Amino acid sequence: MKENNMKKTKTSSDSKTIMTNIVLPNHTNPHGVLFGGELLAWIDVAGVVTAQRHSGRIVVTASVNNVSFDSPIRESDIVTLEATVSRAFTSSMEVFVDVYVENPISGERKKHNEAIYTFVAVDQNGKPIDVPELIPETELEKERYASALQRKQLSLILAGRMKPGEATELKKIFLEDNIS
Amino acid sequence: MKENNMKKTKTSSDSKTIMTNIVLPNHTNPHGVLFGGELLAWIDVAGVVTAQRHSGRIVVTASVNNVSFDSPIRESDIVTLEATVSRAFTSSMEVFVDVYVENPISGERKKHNEAIYTFVAVDQNGKPIDVPELIPETELEKERYASALQRKQLSLILAGRMKPGEATELKKIFLEDNIS
Amino acid sequence: MKENNMKKTKTSSDSKTIMTNIVLPNHTNPHGVLFGGELLAWIDVAGVVTAQRHSGRIVVTASVNNVSFDSPIRESDIVTLEATVSRAFTSSMEVFVDVYVENPISGERKKHNEAIYTFVAVDQNGKPIDVPELIPETELEKERYASALQRKQLSLILAGRMKPGEATELKKIFLEDNIS
Amino acid sequence: MKENNMKKTKTSSDSKTIMTNIVLPNHTNPHGVLFGGELLAWIDVAGVVTAQRHSGRIVVTASVNNVSFDSPIRESDIVTLEATVSRAFTSSMEVFVDVYVENPISGERKKHNEAIYTFVAVDQNGKPIDVPELIPETELEKERYASALQRKQLSLILAGRMKPGEATELKKIFLEDNIS
Amino acid sequence: MKENNMKKTKTSSDSKTIMTNIVLPNHTNPHGVLFGGELLAWIDVAGVVTAQRHSGRIVVTASVNNVSFDSPIRESDIVTLEATVSRAFTSSMEVFVDVYVENPISGERKKHNEAIYTFVAVDQNGKPIDVPELIPETELEKERYASALQRKQLSLILAGRMKPGEATELKKIFLEDNIS
Amino acid sequence: MKENNMKKTKTSSDSKTIMTNIVLPNHTNPHGVLFGGELLAWIDVAGVVTAQRHSGRIVVTASVNNVSFDSPIRESDIVTLEATVSRAFTSSMEVFVDVYVENPISGERKKHNEAIYTFVAVDQNGKPIDVPELIPETELEKERYASALQRKQLSLILAGRMKPGEATELKKIFLEDNIS
Repeated sequence: MKENNMKKTKTSSDSKTIMTNIVLPNHTNPHGVLFGGELLAWIDVAGVVTAQRHSGRIVVTASVNNVSFDSPIRESDIVTLEATVSRAFTSSMEVFVDVYVENPISGERKKHNEAIYTFVAVDQNGKPIDVPELIPETELEKERYASALQRKQLSLILAGRMKPGEATELKKIFLEDNIS
Repeated sequence: MKENNMKKTKTSSDSKTIMTNIVLPNHTNPHGVLFGGELLAWIDVAGVVTAQRHSGRIVVTASVNNVSFDSPIRESDIVTLEATVSRAFTSSMEVFVDVYVENPISGERKKHNEAIYTFVAVDQNGKPIDVPELIPETELEKERYASALQRKQLSLILAGRMKPGEATELKKIFLEDNIS
Repeated sequence: MKENNMKKTKTSSDSKTIMTNIVLPNHTNPHGVLFGGELLAWIDVAGVVTAQRHSGRIVVTASVNNVSFDSPIRESDIVTLEATVSRAFTSSMEVFVDVYVENPISGERKKHNEAIYTFVAVDQNGKPIDVPELIPETELEKERYASALQRKQLSLILAGRMKPGEATELKKIFLEDNIS
Repeated sequence: MKENNMKKTKTSSDSKTIMTNIVLPNHTNPHGVLFGGELLAWIDVAGVVTAQRHSGRIVVTASVNNVSFDSPIRESDIVTLEATVSRAFTSSMEVFVDVYVENPISGERKKHNEAIYTFVAVDQNGKPIDVPELIPETELEKERYASALQRKQLSLILAGRMKPGEATELKKIFLEDNIS
Repeated sequence: MKENNMKKTKTSSDSKTIMTNIVLPNHTNPHGVLFGGELLAWIDVAGVVTAQRHSGRIVVTASVNNVSFDSPIRESDIVTLEATVSRAFTSSMEVFVDVYVENPISGERKKHNEAIYTFVAVDQNGKPIDVPELIPETELEKERYASALQRKQLSLILAGRMKPGEATELKKIFLEDNIS
Repeated sequence: MKENNMKKTKTSSDSKTIMTNIVLPNHTNPHGVLFGGELLAWIDVAGVVTAQRHSGRIVVTASVNNVSFDSPIRESDIVTLEATVSRAFTSSMEVFVDVYVENPISGERKKHNEAIYTFVAVDQNGKPIDVPELIPETELEKERYASALQRKQLSLILAGRMKPGEATELKKIFLEDNIS
C-alpha cells in the first residue's frame, strides 16, 4: 500500500477525478438529449473513483442526496464531470460532482448542474471501515464542508433515523432565520 | 387523445408503472453486485413512464431528490421497480420508485429501497405545461402527498431559490419539535 | 425456501411478470423503430423471471416457439410485457409473453403481439427437475393450456423427435376439420 | 442498383451471411453461459442481412418461427451464425440461421442449433413488395424449401388466419402418416 | 484437442474469420456515421478469433499497428470484416482485417479500409507460447507476409526497442530507393 | 464562437482531455481483463474531444497509427486517459493518448501504454478545413512534435501514397544511423 493511502487526513485535490465524455446517440432519449439515467450512471462512476482515491478502499454508493437537471444536454455536447470529496464522516464520504457542458464547435463551457452522493468505505467483508478526514482548502471547499453536516442531518430525518429536535445544525438555520 | 388523458385529476394507480429485471453480469460492478449507476438509470426510466402516464406529456427529469441504498443487490436477483406519482405541482410531479428484490430460488421478496425523483411536463417547445392534480387514496399515498411539500421546500433551499424563513412547512417540523 | 415455492400446483397469476420499457434510440434499427432482436431479448428476460417464479428454480430457455411482429414499434413508445405460464410439463414450462404498446402522449394502449417460449427448470448440475403443475383459471388461460399440448407435439415433429402419427392431439385438428 | 439485385431468381448462396462472435462476459447470464436473448438478437441481425441481400430491399422481422436451444454456450466460446434464405414467397422470405459453436482452444466446432425466422421486404412507405424467387440447389436446401410451405401453413393456423382444412400441405403429413 | 490445432504450419484460409454486422443507431456518432471506436472494437474481436484459430491458444492484443479510415460508414450499411493471419513470428501473429461496406439496397460492396493488429498467444499462466508458422498461398498473402517483417521492425523502432541501424529490412527500402 | 477558438496557434494544454473510468465486468474479456476493443473505443473518444477542442470543428478519426498493449488491465482497475495534440498539419492533428492504470486499493498508478491517432477537422459538408498550429512547450511535447513528421511519412508510405525516396525525414534516421 502506498504511503499516500495511509495518511490520516487528505485534501479534496488529493482525490479529485475528471471524466470527459461525448453525448453519443446511444446516450440519448427520444428527444435527442442526454438520457437522465445515463448521466446518473456517469456521475456514480466518477464519485466511486473519487471516494476510492480518498479512502484507499472499496466503496459502495450509500445514497444520492441531490441532483438537479436545469437544462437538457444535447447530442454531440462534451460533458466533463469533476468529482471531489466535500467531507468525510467516520466511514462515509460526501462527494460533489460538478457537471460542465461544452459546445464542441464554439468551445463555450458552462456549469450544467451539481450532484451530491454519499459513499461508504468497506473492508473485505463488506463492513464499514474508517476513512481519512477531509481538510477543506478553498472557499468553496470550506462552504461545502460546513453545509455537509446539515445535509447529513436532513438525510437522517428523511430516512426516519433522526428526530428533527436532534438536528442541531438544521434547527439553527430555521430558528436564526425566524428571529431576523 | 384519449379521454383519460384529459382528466383534471388522477390517482396514483392511474399511472403506476411496474418494471421487472434480472441482474445480469453486465449490470454488475467488480464486486458482483448491481452497479449503483445502473439501478439509477432503471429508476429514471420507470419514473419517466409514470410521469408521462400521469401528464399525457413528454417529461424531463428535473431532479433526483433522494435515493438510498441500504444493501447490495446480487447478480441473478430479480429486481422489481414500482413507480407512482406522490404529488403533482403546477407542471412538476414528485415520483416515488419503490425497489423490491426477489431471490430467484426462494422466491423471498423484500423492499430494498425507495427513490424520490421530480419530473416536469413540457410542451412541444420544451416549455413547462400544467399537469393534472394527484388525488391520494391509500394511507401511504396520503402520507407521501403531505410530506411532498416539505421536500419541495428543502430542494428549493438547497438550490438557493428559497430562504429558510419562507419554508413554512419545514419550519413547522423544527418549531413544533422544539417545543415538545 | 418460502412456502409458496414448495406448492405442487400454481396458477398463472402466482408467477405473472410485468416489464415496462421506453423505446430509446439505442433500441432502434436504422428506420427508427424498435429493433426486433432487442424485443426478443426483453421477452426472454420477462419469460425467464416468470418461469423462475413458477418453478423456484434456475431456468434455461429451451425454445422460442413462435413470435410474430405485425407492426413496427416506434421510438419513444412505451412497451409493456406481461409474461404468464400457460402450461407446465414435467420439467418444462410454456410461457406466453403478451406485448402491449402505449403511445406516450395519447396514452392509447393496444396489444402488439404475443410470443410463446419454452423454459426448462434445472438443478445445480444443470439437470432437468420437476416443476409444479399449472392450474388455469380464466377462459384465456384455459384456452392456452389446452392448445399447449398441440404446440408441444408440433415442436417435437419439427425437431424430428416425434412422428406425425404419434401426435394424437394434432391429428385431431386435421381429422375433425377434414370431416366437417 | 446493381444488376445482381434486379434478378428474378436467386440462390441461397447469393445472400448467405456469416457472422462470428466471441461470448464475452457482457453477453452472459448469471450462470456464465450465453444469455438466450443475446443470441436471439444476433440471429435477428444475421437474418436481416441475408433477407436484405436476397431482396435488395429494407426488410422487417415478421416472425420467429422456431428456435431451439439444446445446450448452453459458454463464455469465451466462438459462435458462428450462417444465415440462408430457404424459400421466398410473394414478399416474405423464410430464413434459416444455423448456429455453430467452436471451442477456442481445441478448435472443435459443432452445430449448436438452428433458428427459423420470416422477414418481409417493404418499400419506402413500409408496404410489402415482391422479392425474387429462391432456387434451392443442394439437398439440404431442397429439403428446407419443400417443408417451408408446411411451416407457413402452421404459422397461419397458429395465428388464426387459416383453417386447418385449408392447410393442404400439412394435412398430407398427418393423413399419409395415419394410413401407414 | 483436435488434430488440426497441433499442426506446425497453417495457411491463412485455415483461420480466416468473417464477421458481418449492420450499423445500428447505437453504433453511430452524432453525425450519423459509424463511431470509429465501435469499428475498432469489432476489428479486435475478428482479429482475436482468427489468432485463436491459428494458434489454438488464448491470445491477447499486443498492438494496433495501423488502421486508416478513408470515408464514413453510414447508418444501415452492412459491414463485413474478413480477418486473416498474414505472418506468424515466434509467439506473435500479425493479422490483417479487411473491412468491406455494402449498401443494403443496391447491394454494391466495396473495400472500405484495412487494419493491421498484432496478437500474442499465451499459455495458462499468461506467458507467451509458440504458434504454428504461417504459409502464404495467394499473391496478396505472399506480399503481406513479405512486408510483415518491415512492419515489425518499424514497431520496434517506434517503441524504442530497436535501433534504426539494426532494422535491416527497413533500411533496404530507403537505401535502394535512394540509389534509384 | 469564443475568442479562444479563433486563435491561429494553440498549445497542447489548451485542448488536453482527461477521461477516468473503472473497469467493470461488461468491459472485460473472458479472462477477466479489459477487452482490447473497449480500450480502443475509450481512446477514440478522448482523442476526438481533444481534436475538437484544438480545432473548434467537427473531427473524424483518420487513422490509428500505433497502440501497444504491454500488460493486461484488470477488472476494478481505475483507468485514466490523457489526450493531447502532438502536432497539427494543414487539416489533420496527431493526438497522443497516454493511458495510466491505478490500483483502487493501493492507489499505485503507472503508465500503461500510449496510443497515437490522427484526426481530421471537417466543415459542414465534411470537407477538410484548416486547423490552428500546435506550439509545443515542454520537452516531451517538443520530442513528440519533432517525430510526428516521421510518423506521418511512414503512414503515407504504408498507405502507398508516398515513395520512400520522398520521405526526407525518415531517410535521415536510417542514413545517419548507417554512417555512425
